[in-house]
Amino acid sequence: MSTPAPSSSSSSDLAASLPDLPALREQYAALQALGLALDLTRGKPSAEQLDLAEPMLALPGEGAHTDASGVDVRNYGGLDGLTGLRQIFGELLDVPVAQLLALGNASLTLMHDAIAYAHLWGVPGSPRPWGREETVKFICPVPGYDRHFSVCEAFGVEMVTVPMTPDGPDAEAVAALVADDPAVKGLWVVPTYANPDGAVVSEAVARRLVSMPTAAPDFRIFWDNAYALHHLTANETKTANVIDLAAQAGNPDRPLMFASTSKVSFAGAGVAFLAGSPANIAWYKRHLAVQSIGPDKINQLRHLLFFGSAEGVRAHMRKHREILAPKFAAVDRVLTERLGDTGVATWTQPQGGYFISLDVVPGTAARVVELAKGAGIALTPAGATFPYGRDPRDANIRLAPSMPPLAEVEQAMDAVATCVLLAAAEAQAA
Amino acid sequence: MSTPAPSSSSSSDLAASLPDLPALREQYAALQALGLALDLTRGKPSAEQLDLAEPMLALPGEGAHTDASGVDVRNYGGLDGLTGLRQIFGELLDVPVAQLLALGNASLTLMHDAIAYAHLWGVPGSPRPWGREETVKFICPVPGYDRHFSVCEAFGVEMVTVPMTPDGPDAEAVAALVADDPAVKGLWVVPTYANPDGAVVSEAVARRLVSMPTAAPDFRIFWDNAYALHHLTANETKTANVIDLAAQAGNPDRPLMFASTSKVSFAGAGVAFLAGSPANIAWYKRHLAVQSIGPDKINQLRHLLFFGSAEGVRAHMRKHREILAPKFAAVDRVLTERLGDTGVATWTQPQGGYFISLDVVPGTAARVVELAKGAGIALTPAGATFPYGRDPRDANIRLAPSMPPLAEVEQAMDAVATCVLLAAAEAQAA
Repeated sequence: MSTPAPSSSSSSDLAASLPDLPALREQYAALQALGLALDLTRGKPSAEQLDLAEPMLALPGEGAHTDASGVDVRNYGGLDGLTGLRQIFGELLDVPVAQLLALGNASLTLMHDAIAYAHLWGVPGSPRPWGREETVKFICPVPGYDRHFSVCEAFGVEMVTVPMTPDGPDAEAVAALVADDPAVKGLWVVPTYANPDGAVVSEAVARRLVSMPTAAPDFRIFWDNAYALHHLTANETKTANVIDLAAQAGNPDRPLMFASTSKVSFAGAGVAFLAGSPANIAWYKRHLAVQSIGPDKINQLRHLLFFGSAEGVRAHMRKHREILAPKFAAVDRVLTERLGDTGVATWTQPQGGYFISLDVVPGTAARVVELAKGAGIALTPAGATFPYGRDPRDANIRLAPSMPPLAEVEQAMDAVATCVLLAAAEAQAA
Repeated sequence: MSTPAPSSSSSSDLAASLPDLPALREQYAALQALGLALDLTRGKPSAEQLDLAEPMLALPGEGAHTDASGVDVRNYGGLDGLTGLRQIFGELLDVPVAQLLALGNASLTLMHDAIAYAHLWGVPGSPRPWGREETVKFICPVPGYDRHFSVCEAFGVEMVTVPMTPDGPDAEAVAALVADDPAVKGLWVVPTYANPDGAVVSEAVARRLVSMPTAAPDFRIFWDNAYALHHLTANETKTANVIDLAAQAGNPDRPLMFASTSKVSFAGAGVAFLAGSPANIAWYKRHLAVQSIGPDKINQLRHLLFFGSAEGVRAHMRKHREILAPKFAAVDRVLTERLGDTGVATWTQPQGGYFISLDVVPGTAARVVELAKGAGIALTPAGATFPYGRDPRDANIRLAPSMPPLAEVEQAMDAVATCVLLAAAEAQAA
């Protein structure tokens, strides 16, 4: 999917294909004169996408306050979430209903809390709470998701990086890290259309990750299936069933799967899901029961009524695709037009998800983001896709084209291309 | 408010007023023959109360997805919660909007998480995270709320009890415990219509609690204002403004105030609030920002549109009162009729909240609950109002009359009275 890394171009290649520095400076000045104010920082759905679920704002409707089994969703209780909604997402995520909890409005909270529970009390198989270990390490495939890194940083978890490949995390690198070091307790994986590079974990990689020997008896894969349903093409990829594979490999408790409807229904007012082995689910619920009497079941009924079925969700996601795919195509088109022949950048062509991963000339990513800012384009800070915000090559930039209207995406990408070229020319001149 | 404790009656007094054991056994057998199935275990709102907010189920309505400041409530962000809703509850709880967060669906979660953050990272003023202390102790006024005790138990927090008085926790007992022991880090207070005894903290007690010297530099009062608005009479008590008083006393960071709309709008689908000093709010938000991108703002807009103003909330609570007050009156009436002259029980006459605290002959509370169960009446387990579920006198039972219809409340109380009498007669005979 991704083209070769730009670092393979020699600087003399660059010299041949780049416009000269004064010309680029002029282009940049002209760009600044436009007075743009565009934001591509975060993977937020656009208003047009949110409109797709607008009828939910009047649901469940007066008088509709019981689910199929007669539960009054307005009252306390029901720690597992509504059965009907768990059935729909059990089908979509390919997990048994009994191993799936429908909870609050954010999978980030579930991931944070799973790590908090682990630090305070340990997970099934822990010799002691993680907070009592001298060191806890997590493996972070890079580039990756900044909020995963923030959670680790908050808990003082040491982050060790491995490269992402088009098939997911570099499984051999992961296997080598976990084999001998019992401090390595976790691995972040965004298995479907990874943030930011769009990679999909292959079945072979998934098998390797759930079957590799680990020195820690309580090693966990945080399988953040945030984009499980977020296809950009007609090929509706189904990710490897990590929970089944782990059980088959004799390590049923290794994966914890997270998902949500944040980018299906409403960002911030969706429903988040946690799936895992029976032991993991019992563990999570035991701690959750102290923290909560139950999730917002009215919101869960609202989702159940709106989507109706797994197919209802899939059909809804095709409408998202119709809005998103042209924006992703526009990014690729503009970058190809402006940068295709220059050798100063490569970028991904994701088949789903919310991001494009752009690699620029090493040493210039931060400068590109700075230049873009100077021209009124807010990009995700350079380094954000690496632990501690430090990209050792200063090369990766995450592009998030979902939020602005199509015309603005095109305008922003054209501007970004100018910044990439100028930063490259500056570096070459230095 | 409460009548003298039954322990003051001598057993010969009891003998004079109690029906004899065989007669009570016959009464109990007749009760069992009724085949009742009634539940008074939890403080859940009734369906009739939930119906009061039924129009919210169709809110905010299609097209209504921005707040007054133009925020699209469907998208991510807004960690503090919607300003408009914070304004309403800032007025109701008497705290500045800047010191009030509107968050998820449960204040229990906020209390749990505040203690979790404290254990993991400490609070402002902590010499180290609470989890690194050898011992952490909380003062628990008894009788109290079982979920507070469960949170302490989960964190290994040692619970030390002090008696409740009609003016709140016994402030001198609290002051004595905190004065010399730096391990005492917290105090639970339900300031308004306490669970279960209905006491309201007086301004004098509140002043004492916020100004007493504490050995711990990071001592916190967990001010769980769950029933702030839940009046059962026309006297709409306003609780002491603990946040102002603490600031005046030079201990602004001492109280953390919690509240929610769980028993205002919908239990489980309400909005929870956290209030505190600027330093406490900044502290909470710093950790919350790692755990969440923002609360469910659509639900907050739903509440804002439905209530409209602080007065809208107050008017709504008067409708709750119309439903609840007759049930509380029925409990008092039936218990007075059946037990008033016997000397075997005392109970509270709360002016608000959700509970009546019933004290029976010491040593018989568990037996009363067992007998009630045998007759189809589920009561809160004896001991639940004490830490670790252990009532040293085995005397206190929490009655929760909100959920069943009025006729069932009367029937259940009549049955409970029979059980109280039988258990007392059994004890006397033993």
